[in-house]
Amino acid sequence: MSDKIPYILVTNDDGITAKGLRILIETAKKFGDVIVVAPDSHQSAKSHSITQASPIRFDKVEEFNGHLEYSCSGTPVDCVKLALHEISERKPDLILSGINHGANTSVSVLYSGTMGAAIEGSLHDIKSIGFSVDNHFSDADFSDAVPWMEKIISEVLDKGLPAGVSLNVNFPDVTKVKIKGIKTLRGAKGVWGERFVKANDPHMRNFVWITGDLYNKDEGKEDTDIYQLKQEFATVVPIKVDFNYYDFISELSEWDFNE
Amino acid sequence: MSDKIPYILVTNDDGITAKGLRILIETAKKFGDVIVVAPDSHQSAKSHSITQASPIRFDKVEEFNGHLEYSCSGTPVDCVKLALHEISERKPDLILSGINHGANTSVSVLYSGTMGAAIEGSLHDIKSIGFSVDNHFSDADFSDAVPWMEKIISEVLDKGLPAGVSLNVNFPDVTKVKIKGIKTLRGAKGVWGERFVKANDPHMRNFVWITGDLYNKDEGKEDTDIYQLKQEFATVVPIKVDFNYYDFISELSEWDFNE
Repeated sequence: MSDKIPYILVTNDDGITAKGLRILIETAKKFGDVIVVAPDSHQSAKSHSITQASPIRFDKVEEFNGHLEYSCSGTPVDCVKLALHEISERKPDLILSGINHGANTSVSVLYSGTMGAAIEGSLHDIKSIGFSVDNHFSDADFSDAVPWMEKIISEVLDKGLPAGVSLNVNFPDVTKVKIKGIKTLRGAKGVWGERFVKANDPHMRNFVWITGDLYNKDEGKEDTDIYQLKQEFATVVPIKVDFNYYDFISELSEWDFNE
Repeated sequence: MSDKIPYILVTNDDGITAKGLRILIETAKKFGDVIVVAPDSHQSAKSHSITQASPIRFDKVEEFNGHLEYSCSGTPVDCVKLALHEISERKPDLILSGINHGANTSVSVLYSGTMGAAIEGSLHDIKSIGFSVDNHFSDADFSDAVPWMEKIISEVLDKGLPAGVSLNVNFPDVTKVKIKGIKTLRGAKGVWGERFVKANDPHMRNFVWITGDLYNKDEGKEDTDIYQLKQEFATVVPIKVDFNYYDFISELSEWDFNE
């Protein structure tokens, strides 16, 4: 690690009042100067969305010992973009997102606002980590994850990450189990099978509310995050965005598109 | 192609009134039975987000000759999930998303609601295609793209797509240029460099509005979508989601996380 004090941007998707964010801020402050730009409301499952059709507001909400906090009306990715271009004094050395109330294993990375923020950081070549705990209750106490987060943050600051790469870190439910250690591995292949809860509003107009279950296509595979999280390990998955399916380009180019 | 009449779900991110959607519906009807589930408002740049923190409404808006249309208060991915689980008579054989008013080349796939819907289809192992035109005006006439869309849809219905793979199709601005042909290739590497326009609302409260420019990291590379779109070709990129950065797992597992 260089002698320069790291400048650390902290954000999340559960909103600026979330307990998980508070613990992450306190942890981040052990490593450097912290700035917080977080959504003013719940922004779960916002993926990589940005607010394009309407304006964004942001407000300075607090000035604590040595760090500033801003709330933002936009998504987690909006928060990162706003921090980088309007709020931060300088380009952050590290972006920390979370601690999310709920696991983000497998294909959940695609839907997750927590990971959306971390991925956005990595696209700007900033070392970025998303943290999640397998407990979605807003009053859950994630303190037991702190020593493990410190190990991960320390290693990332020390060794860096390849360009365009972020880390997706999931902890087991630390309110119930003791973390056995950290496993580095891949995210399981899976798909969200959705369900819709149906009801009427107080005006007797019907609505649906989305929920669902993650189907693990890698059931029983020890080299996946879902498997090891169940074994009470923290999981670290390196994440890189490249949507091109290179293996199919050559075959596809032989199709009769131009005839 | 089998003798069974294909059942085709059509959606978009510009909303159910968009001209691009109307052209796509008419094109789809040449190939099978069509159902439309599209957002009731603009849902651009919604990426893969779903509406988790609030209910979703959907309403049957029209019953045309041989097809039904539903509007939905959610995102493009919500529309697909709702169609699959609540509205469709049977699992669609094909999902068509677009025609988006604006190109979705390079890293734009990550932010795009149009491609969010197509990718969601591919995760459910449904053949899915996102169409976009490099013209973002809502009154633009995309009719000249129709013969090329027909070629692509016909080939996809005939030959199928690998599991989990969708196609990202971009057309040059057909209101100004004549399409020279179709190129199958990869999406260019790039990053969105964002800017914020600042102003005050009528109540003198300030806001910011996000905009930006796509920086092409593959400038001049002929095997990329950005390059060939500029040469007035339509571009077809096969898309598959896998966020795991496998090449780094082994190195990362040697870090001192557990000491």
